[in-house]
Amino acid sequence: MIGKLFRVSIFGESHGKGVGVLIEGCPPGIPLDEGYIAKELERRKPGGILVSPRQESDKPRILSGVFRGRTTGGPLVIFVENRDIDSSFYEEIKDTPRPGHADYVARVKYWGFNDYRGGGISSGRITVGIVAAGAVAKRILSLYNIRVYSYIVRINGVEANIKPVDNESFRQKIYSNPLRCPDSRVAKIMEEELRRALREGDSLGGIVETIVFNVPVGLGDPPMNGLDSDLAKAMLSIPGAKGIEFGLGFKLASMKGSEANDSWTIRNGKIVAESNNMGGINGGISNGMPIIFRVVFKPTPTIRKPQKTVDLRTRRQVIIRGQGRHDPCIAIRAVPVVEAYTAIVLVDHLLRWLAWQPLKSRILGVESIK
Amino acid sequence: MIGKLFRVSIFGESHGKGVGVLIEGCPPGIPLDEGYIAKELERRKPGGILVSPRQESDKPRILSGVFRGRTTGGPLVIFVENRDIDSSFYEEIKDTPRPGHADYVARVKYWGFNDYRGGGISSGRITVGIVAAGAVAKRILSLYNIRVYSYIVRINGVEANIKPVDNESFRQKIYSNPLRCPDSRVAKIMEEELRRALREGDSLGGIVETIVFNVPVGLGDPPMNGLDSDLAKAMLSIPGAKGIEFGLGFKLASMKGSEANDSWTIRNGKIVAESNNMGGINGGISNGMPIIFRVVFKPTPTIRKPQKTVDLRTRRQVIIRGQGRHDPCIAIRAVPVVEAYTAIVLVDHLLRWLAWQPLKSRILGVESIK
Amino acid sequence: MIGKLFRVSIFGESHGKGVGVLIEGCPPGIPLDEGYIAKELERRKPGGILVSPRQESDKPRILSGVFRGRTTGGPLVIFVENRDIDSSFYEEIKDTPRPGHADYVARVKYWGFNDYRGGGISSGRITVGIVAAGAVAKRILSLYNIRVYSYIVRINGVEANIKPVDNESFRQKIYSNPLRCPDSRVAKIMEEELRRALREGDSLGGIVETIVFNVPVGLGDPPMNGLDSDLAKAMLSIPGAKGIEFGLGFKLASMKGSEANDSWTIRNGKIVAESNNMGGINGGISNGMPIIFRVVFKPTPTIRKPQKTVDLRTRRQVIIRGQGRHDPCIAIRAVPVVEAYTAIVLVDHLLRWLAWQPLKSRILGVESIK
Amino acid sequence: MIGKLFRVSIFGESHGKGVGVLIEGCPPGIPLDEGYIAKELERRKPGGILVSPRQESDKPRILSGVFRGRTTGGPLVIFVENRDIDSSFYEEIKDTPRPGHADYVARVKYWGFNDYRGGGISSGRITVGIVAAGAVAKRILSLYNIRVYSYIVRINGVEANIKPVDNESFRQKIYSNPLRCPDSRVAKIMEEELRRALREGDSLGGIVETIVFNVPVGLGDPPMNGLDSDLAKAMLSIPGAKGIEFGLGFKLASMKGSEANDSWTIRNGKIVAESNNMGGINGGISNGMPIIFRVVFKPTPTIRKPQKTVDLRTRRQVIIRGQGRHDPCIAIRAVPVVEAYTAIVLVDHLLRWLAWQPLKSRILGVESIK
Repeated sequence: MIGKLFRVSIFGESHGKGVGVLIEGCPPGIPLDEGYIAKELERRKPGGILVSPRQESDKPRILSGVFRGRTTGGPLVIFVENRDIDSSFYEEIKDTPRPGHADYVARVKYWGFNDYRGGGISSGRITVGIVAAGAVAKRILSLYNIRVYSYIVRINGVEANIKPVDNESFRQKIYSNPLRCPDSRVAKIMEEELRRALREGDSLGGIVETIVFNVPVGLGDPPMNGLDSDLAKAMLSIPGAKGIEFGLGFKLASMKGSEANDSWTIRNGKIVAESNNMGGINGGISNGMPIIFRVVFKPTPTIRKPQKTVDLRTRRQVIIRGQGRHDPCIAIRAVPVVEAYTAIVLVDHLLRWLAWQPLKSRILGVESIK
Repeated sequence: MIGKLFRVSIFGESHGKGVGVLIEGCPPGIPLDEGYIAKELERRKPGGILVSPRQESDKPRILSGVFRGRTTGGPLVIFVENRDIDSSFYEEIKDTPRPGHADYVARVKYWGFNDYRGGGISSGRITVGIVAAGAVAKRILSLYNIRVYSYIVRINGVEANIKPVDNESFRQKIYSNPLRCPDSRVAKIMEEELRRALREGDSLGGIVETIVFNVPVGLGDPPMNGLDSDLAKAMLSIPGAKGIEFGLGFKLASMKGSEANDSWTIRNGKIVAESNNMGGINGGISNGMPIIFRVVFKPTPTIRKPQKTVDLRTRRQVIIRGQGRHDPCIAIRAVPVVEAYTAIVLVDHLLRWLAWQPLKSRILGVESIK
Repeated sequence: MIGKLFRVSIFGESHGKGVGVLIEGCPPGIPLDEGYIAKELERRKPGGILVSPRQESDKPRILSGVFRGRTTGGPLVIFVENRDIDSSFYEEIKDTPRPGHADYVARVKYWGFNDYRGGGISSGRITVGIVAAGAVAKRILSLYNIRVYSYIVRINGVEANIKPVDNESFRQKIYSNPLRCPDSRVAKIMEEELRRALREGDSLGGIVETIVFNVPVGLGDPPMNGLDSDLAKAMLSIPGAKGIEFGLGFKLASMKGSEANDSWTIRNGKIVAESNNMGGINGGISNGMPIIFRVVFKPTPTIRKPQKTVDLRTRRQVIIRGQGRHDPCIAIRAVPVVEAYTAIVLVDHLLRWLAWQPLKSRILGVESIK
Repeated sequence: MIGKLFRVSIFGESHGKGVGVLIEGCPPGIPLDEGYIAKELERRKPGGILVSPRQESDKPRILSGVFRGRTTGGPLVIFVENRDIDSSFYEEIKDTPRPGHADYVARVKYWGFNDYRGGGISSGRITVGIVAAGAVAKRILSLYNIRVYSYIVRINGVEANIKPVDNESFRQKIYSNPLRCPDSRVAKIMEEELRRALREGDSLGGIVETIVFNVPVGLGDPPMNGLDSDLAKAMLSIPGAKGIEFGLGFKLASMKGSEANDSWTIRNGKIVAESNNMGGINGGISNGMPIIFRVVFKPTPTIRKPQKTVDLRTRRQVIIRGQGRHDPCIAIRAVPVVEAYTAIVLVDHLLRWLAWQPLKSRILGVESIK
């Protein structure tokens, strides 16, 4: 479970009955139906030769928390059955943990009782629940015009040049491209890299960037539950994520204070920062600028190339080859997951921030200490 | 508050009565006295011309939770009074928020009621509580021979070449150097950079690396509370931190799966990874290899160089210069904070892991489904 | 959600798709199958003329967290579809909130978006999830021989005389009686009272007592999360519960310290209390004696007798009569719910207690303060 | 720690350095100074011969979270040093656990490392932190005219006849009486009982009733975090509390539905209940009527009369007599604690409720499903 007021718990396994999510604390009256969620889940499946051949129909069922097309305010559960399952491969390799996967650690932690098929709860498939919850979260954010856009900025050595704008055409640019990279020129080069990696039986890493527009000043709960802290926690729990940076991030290690600081200025009567090197967050609190961060994803660990591992029965070194169905670059499929998770964290902090707002005028009206 | 079983809450302000920490769930019987904590707090003060001239004596007082030199099992509070306080500068600039600081966002979020002196709760001084709690956490980790080492690996463009080893002489190498960089040759170059920045009235960013030895396989609570998730959350809450990466981190974006995957092998009868590109964590769970991550810190935002900001009364653009007492590179002072925070997160996950261990033999003994 | 290590979230509505439960933190390897859960759910249906005519088949489906008959250590979801639904009555009365029900408060709190049919999330049907989670919890408790027994001790003015014993025949005595009262002589009188109430179109209140055997000394986490605190929280969340007392409870208000105190003595070489007036808990911590508490349930609010309420459209006083399907005494159906909830809270505290146990010998071995 | 948005953690020991409280999530701008808190703490000391001779000056110090007389929005810590300490008695009896106290369970749970002097963290003294946090909570509640009154309704067999009213003169009636019982006629009889018990070296149990006025409809977070659930959890954590009942409570076990149900009616254009048998809560949600509940406190366990216990060194039966300084009836001193704890729980739920309010008009404005 994550979250304080908007609390999200995902469940399910790659090759079990299905995957899903439970949301506690969702406000009532939010329009929600299975069709809308299904459309959001579609985004996890870029299609094309570049992605996993697993063809889930991903028909979400709302099990509770929605009545006549609106959320009820009660616990909300969305469940997606697994259908297109072929577990034969996993039986074969169950004693030879795949390098880069959680097979080995899960076996040790869960004393061998874990559902090892397809990675079980460590599979990327579990992110279906995140995307479903994110669909709900986005509806709530839209009440405050807060919008989240995630997209690919880097695959292998190739970096895209992207100027994010807060409109639907930018979102279409992202999702019309199978790589979820709105710089279509660079996306072509990335696609070439991906095809080459596929031919070689290999996979590639990548970076997903996220920008959030219209976040009010004041979201975040320092000193220990800052907005960046909670975003970092969420992002690092996405399978394959190995790092996160806000604003200029790791570049700041090579910069001077005079270059890095975002100066305050007035624009159209509003106080804004002249630059956004900090990614819209100061001291764990949103500062009114767009929130920007980047999450790095390792290359898909399952590859056709032979890899060394240990047979846990014989405790001997053996060679395995990936034969399951996998994307050549998990960063691409992570795009909607990053976007959804961001929305989830933002709704939780939005609600926490809203909790104080009705008090403001009453408190400011307390003239003297009584 | 962070943590589930070992719960830590920091409090205090830069220029208020003091700073401190409350720990709930600390096991009883851990040896603890104020002298030991004072020594750990000393590490926050590298000394030399390179760091803040503020000279706190930092005498910790244990207010509760320790009886006759051992923890009682009850809530533990450590408090450090502020003494060497000069708030005059802050009165002067209270309406001109410093670029790169939380001054502006705190004023908006807290409707002007925040203690703005020295940054209030957003000040680096609040990390005293983290270091104090980390002192307790390290004692608990030592029962399992788990040891944490943090150190500077990069300042400005200069990268150190460090081979961490799990022994006291490595720790001494870190702390005998005023920059907390165990590569003394490179540390000299870094020092030159820092002196130049100081002369120019500027500051520098840096990267703190952390390695943890002897973590058992199995710590971490996926799918939403992985060990890396909780470490990321903690690190991003340290003032000035703007990113974190585990293992090879952002380098993985330019790598292939065949290069990135850590193969499993047998060494001295134990299953280990041949490389440690993943930084000791797979799928949110520790894999028995050393845990390695890097946290980037922005340059100290307060600099002597003139900077633009807005006067919040007149809403006009003005120029300010930092005159408070500040380190030229907060990454250096962050070293013991990163180390302490890591220990805190690890103890929480160690306890969560331990909760299942006594069950293991009983469960494995359940032969058939009853 | 309740719980720290064994975290339970229930969901669902009376007349929606179904009801269920999500458990996070369940240890791996616990034998579990749908048949066993179905049997536990059977206990919610005492049958006979005394209880609600609603005939749910209550076929539980495990949606995640179990693999080959054992828990995996991942999130566990159990779902029970609603089948025998007749919502026609509720359409009719949707604007005339039933006295004693949550109809009115739910409508206000959820701005009219709540699923009002059958009480929605406020229905007793939501306790299906509790009983299902309790089934899992009991399996874990059984590893430590901890056993929970709940039963009716009072209906209307009639009090049973019960000597609880820790064996299967006592449990059979409880469940062989349709009133869940192991004092069969008194149960007959209670049954008479119930029949009379039914004839009069009325309902009766009652008290459920619970005893837990073999709880080790030391469970509970004071000062704010004592074992009694967490039990009280759980019990008061059962629909219809209006109070709880531990040991002699409210009788203690009329007693002297010399009568109330449980003296310590030695029996069979073990330290035990001579009496158990405190119900097995001192200062929030289990003391090794059986844990005993009583929960009072109000009479079923839906009755055939005419009752006054307000028509929310016309804002006029109107008269309604209950026509839904309801038990004449919800205390009876609450028996397995109380038992299950007790098991859930105990597992959470057992795990929290277990987390410290492996440390004990290591800490006691720390000779001097190092 | 308890609470979700208004999070309160108490700390300290009876005979340690002091006692206190940490509050996270307190809104900014609430007027607060040490004088006001001191006055609230005074209420814990009814004075007269009826209460403990321990004479703490109880000078609260605000260690953080207040700036220029207003809360800052950051973590707030209030600390009260222990001064009037005489621990000699406790050394003497440290191996002979007092009946009715937590001495024995604490020793077992904390492996003998607990601060046993004066009961350590199990002492009633730890409630100082609750009263201090309650002082803050009441200030917040007053912004919504929510007011809490707690008072004694029963001591030994004697029951007071009280008609609570929401005004200052009712509060003065409570606090002008040393027994905190606003029925002065009955209070005299209670006082006689107490004097007799004192003469006999004994102590008495009692019941504290609480009424809360002006709670809006809608506070509470069912199905698992209802307002009554959270109040019950809080109350049961007060030392000596052994039960709680809402509204008619245990009387409901002997009532019929037609008698118990509170009918809805219209009064002055507002929907209200004709009776308040449910104590202002339906299905875990406040219903707009005054919230009423009663908490039973056992007799003070320490008495001068001889009692049996076990010497833990020799494991032999021994006789002890209480010689510490204790109230003859802890219920009396618990009155302000119950009141404070109630305020704390209500603020937390008020904030959770407020978090949804700004959304309401936006959500109701969403015409169609978009």
